[in-house]
Amino acid sequence: MNDLYYMKLAIEEAKKAFSEDEVPIGAIIVSRNRVIARAHNMTETLNDVTAHAEILAITAAENFIGGKYLRDCTMYVSLEPCVMCSGAIAWSQLSKLVYAAKDLKKGYTAVCGNILHSKIEIVTGILQLESEALIKDFFARKRNPKI
Amino acid sequence: MNDLYYMKLAIEEAKKAFSEDEVPIGAIIVSRNRVIARAHNMTETLNDVTAHAEILAITAAENFIGGKYLRDCTMYVSLEPCVMCSGAIAWSQLSKLVYAAKDLKKGYTAVCGNILHSKIEIVTGILQLESEALIKDFFARKRNPKI
Repeated sequence: MNDLYYMKLAIEEAKKAFSEDEVPIGAIIVSRNRVIARAHNMTETLNDVTAHAEILAITAAENFIGGKYLRDCTMYVSLEPCVMCSGAIAWSQLSKLVYAAKDLKKGYTAVCGNILHSKIEIVTGILQLESEALIKDFFARKRNPKI
Repeated sequence: MNDLYYMKLAIEEAKKAFSEDEVPIGAIIVSRNRVIARAHNMTETLNDVTAHAEILAITAAENFIGGKYLRDCTMYVSLEPCVMCSGAIAWSQLSKLVYAAKDLKKGYTAVCGNILHSKIEIVTGILQLESEALIKDFFARKRNPKI
């Protein structure tokens, strides 16, 4: 199992969001080669701005573990986290973050620079094109529902 | 009804957290002079790093309103929000934020500068000493349970 395998699962989650008319972003949390949480953006369905894929995945993973720290866990997410989600990632002490596409407008690096804790390993760019295509397709359909 | 009145309610929420052995932080959301959400930090109880008072209050207020934006709403919180919570406040489009004490270590202004949207009104310092005393008392008891 490698980063590409798990990012494919995150993209699958993003596609579920797409099919529910949500901005297509998905996240997976892995502990010791086991998927312990999977989630997709549900802000519209839940009428809740905090219901980003990453927040839902962290809550689910901590619930699964029965503890509030995710040391030795990796998050795979299809888009660079926003400030809110990167704050949650920092609190959770996740040891590794892998994201596919950069978010040049709302991503935490654009808004704040590196606000994650210094020990976290960060990998970017895996399945970037697939993630970007999904998001572009989503907003193209929003602008023109006939597509 | 004024800022002092609502901040007292936020401090009451913080005291509930204290009594549940949670870091004592409370939050209230007010819409047109009506309290539409109240919450306190529940990270230990829920084993969830995302269960800060502000996040829980935003989710509750949006659930109450049935929409994901909190325009024309004010949040009163007993401690300066962290990066995660200020990100959520920005997404929610709250029109006003009032916080009692500054968080010099984890507060969003210390970590990131101003990451809230430019239109939000920010008021600080109301019941600052009461909030600080509550937090100091909490950590003193943590260090020395005999107090």
